[in-house]
Amino acid sequence: MEDNFYTIAYNAKTASKKFAGISTEIKNNALANIANSIEQNKEKIFEANKQDLVLAKSLVESGEINISAYNRLKLDENKMRDMIQGIRDIILLDDPTHKVLLKRELDDGLILTKTTCPIGVLGIIFESRPDVITQISSLAIKSGNVVILKGGKEAINTNKMIMSIIQKALDNTDGFPKNVLNQVFTRDDVAQMLKQDKFIDLIIPRGGNKLVKFIKENTKIPVLGHADGICHIYIDEYADIEKAKKIIIDAKTQYPSACNSVETVLVHKNIQNKYGKDIIDSLQNADIEVVFEPESWHIEYGEKKLSYKIVNSLEEAIEHINENSSGHTESIVTENNDNAKKFMNMVDSAGVYHNVSTRFADGFRYGFGAEVGISTNKTHARGPVGLEGLTIYKYTIEGNGQVVKDYAEGKKHFRHKDLI
Amino acid sequence: MEDNFYTIAYNAKTASKKFAGISTEIKNNALANIANSIEQNKEKIFEANKQDLVLAKSLVESGEINISAYNRLKLDENKMRDMIQGIRDIILLDDPTHKVLLKRELDDGLILTKTTCPIGVLGIIFESRPDVITQISSLAIKSGNVVILKGGKEAINTNKMIMSIIQKALDNTDGFPKNVLNQVFTRDDVAQMLKQDKFIDLIIPRGGNKLVKFIKENTKIPVLGHADGICHIYIDEYADIEKAKKIIIDAKTQYPSACNSVETVLVHKNIQNKYGKDIIDSLQNADIEVVFEPESWHIEYGEKKLSYKIVNSLEEAIEHINENSSGHTESIVTENNDNAKKFMNMVDSAGVYHNVSTRFADGFRYGFGAEVGISTNKTHARGPVGLEGLTIYKYTIEGNGQVVKDYAEGKKHFRHKDLI
Repeated sequence: MEDNFYTIAYNAKTASKKFAGISTEIKNNALANIANSIEQNKEKIFEANKQDLVLAKSLVESGEINISAYNRLKLDENKMRDMIQGIRDIILLDDPTHKVLLKRELDDGLILTKTTCPIGVLGIIFESRPDVITQISSLAIKSGNVVILKGGKEAINTNKMIMSIIQKALDNTDGFPKNVLNQVFTRDDVAQMLKQDKFIDLIIPRGGNKLVKFIKENTKIPVLGHADGICHIYIDEYADIEKAKKIIIDAKTQYPSACNSVETVLVHKNIQNKYGKDIIDSLQNADIEVVFEPESWHIEYGEKKLSYKIVNSLEEAIEHINENSSGHTESIVTENNDNAKKFMNMVDSAGVYHNVSTRFADGFRYGFGAEVGISTNKTHARGPVGLEGLTIYKYTIEGNGQVVKDYAEGKKHFRHKDLI
Repeated sequence: MEDNFYTIAYNAKTASKKFAGISTEIKNNALANIANSIEQNKEKIFEANKQDLVLAKSLVESGEINISAYNRLKLDENKMRDMIQGIRDIILLDDPTHKVLLKRELDDGLILTKTTCPIGVLGIIFESRPDVITQISSLAIKSGNVVILKGGKEAINTNKMIMSIIQKALDNTDGFPKNVLNQVFTRDDVAQMLKQDKFIDLIIPRGGNKLVKFIKENTKIPVLGHADGICHIYIDEYADIEKAKKIIIDAKTQYPSACNSVETVLVHKNIQNKYGKDIIDSLQNADIEVVFEPESWHIEYGEKKLSYKIVNSLEEAIEHINENSSGHTESIVTENNDNAKKFMNMVDSAGVYHNVSTRFADGFRYGFGAEVGISTNKTHARGPVGLEGLTIYKYTIEGNGQVVKDYAEGKKHFRHKDLI
């Protein structure tokens, strides 16, 4: 097992060096072939998915998985259409690599260039949803990255079938290198993946917060994602109450299990005194359960339920958020622009909003075209991450025999003139 | 001890939220005050340094530290002048925070803005050189980051004196918050620092590769830096031999212990056949020891010594580099532009050069003004890192009560119009 993973990871790393230089055209051809092959072979995928669903049904009955995991696993015509369209959408996006970020004449005939390039090898660990394979594979291909995918065992037949269709499509793409997409299957493979910082450059977990937490705690490889989504809405002393109610109800009910749903509402004491009953009634009328003294301020309910706290000031709200938030997304409702500005400056989260629902935190809504995930990291990529988050850069210098000695001795001098 | 570090880290994190909003003016005032105070109190620093040097001398005699560590520790008028000038140079650099990277109208009155901001709390672990304190503290202040510094015990008197002078300068700076610069002293503090991923966002080690390796292996916090600098120069079949010799000699002798010095020279077999003797003679005449069959291709000599290998092709050179390099900096010497292009595309290192010395890999030479360090990471920052590497970004949305429901139901549509 161990040797097997090592070989896959080693080959993946080797492939990544080749793949980094592949043209946008070849990558787009590969994506078009994948979309077409999946379209042509969708019945095979449905068949494989049915096999998984039989087992999954018994797991639901025995209580080992819940019904929403079963629903995420299930592919239907709609999901299949979205999956295929998702691949074709990525063809239309800009290639995020080979972009020149800086071009600087250091001196006569000494040109420094900073160019985006792929990160290298991505380790993807995901649960249930088989559509993650096509989505992440497409994003990886477009950004020139090699991937090693490990899906949930409950979707193993579906995942294997999708992957074999994708692999055939890639084999039929002229100039597309081998070992760009790799699949592994066991828990032991995951353990190996988390250890292989020599070959794997970035781990992207796609799943519930238990999975993400486990991964973050068990690897030194950078992890792109978020474990928790403890989002806050603060109703300021100068809030428009109608806006506040509308925003909270949207942020809690529009998709309660989403990571950008609100979990805690903070209410200024003056607002509470005047409008507290009205607000709470409105939330309850929208089927939201309001918890006044939760056991912890770190609860991600994932359902129509939220924690409610009265605060004495804007400062107390900011402090509560910086202390208890997961750094995902927070919003202030206020008609006072100074307070809004202070909140947006002082709250240290990936998204800080004024008078809008936290549910806007999303790559598609931000206009990124496709989303790798949402990151609460403080380095590399933060917030909704598009294709750009799968790139890094490389510095090149073109010269004609220049040596540092001449500059150190003062015979030559740097000019540092930007050319773009 | 543990409680002590926890308190410092907790206070640092709290301070970081405040410090993120501080104006460029206040930060520059603080830097000017620091430079002036150090200038006025330099005799006190020399005194403290002398105390450290007495002990260090006995450690050199007993073999516990080497003479170059002693030299790095020693402050003289020249180093002091550079130290002070270094702080003043940073005042002149652009503030890397509050920069708008993207401003997009998502819809009428719904404005998304992506703005750079500080990372938060930096943990700095450094050896011997006391000038690291002023350099890193200045970079941290300019970029709005809070730091926790742990210097080597051999410089403890010098470090304490410099820090107390800096703290006084900060206390005398109007509007400068408390707890921005923090200093810890023990090994146990380092162990705590490496564990505190809740409060520390980035670790920057400044020291030898043993220190950096130890840190990278013992923390899950992102580490900015490089352990090894195994840089390569490949003399291609189409190399200009005079350029090749000049570049290798510069890359090995100009500063042999630098991380961007060359460690391995790869020579195409045809060049070796025709010019091998000439090349080797030239290197030996420049006092360079040439090792033909080293025990490993991962040796960082740090002295005038290099590994030498004959390769059959450009491809073999690229493969050798991708297999053995530390991903720092490599250079090809060739008059064939196709070969240069292939090399620069396929070699996966932070710097890949054509016909120049690897010694150019440096923030000052690149024109970044000041250098945090050189990173061999594949995420966040790669190569020489300037102030920009100490920032991340935040997304804000300004709205007027917008909710996601309206977009999900098709009542409203995103426009995604870039405003800058």
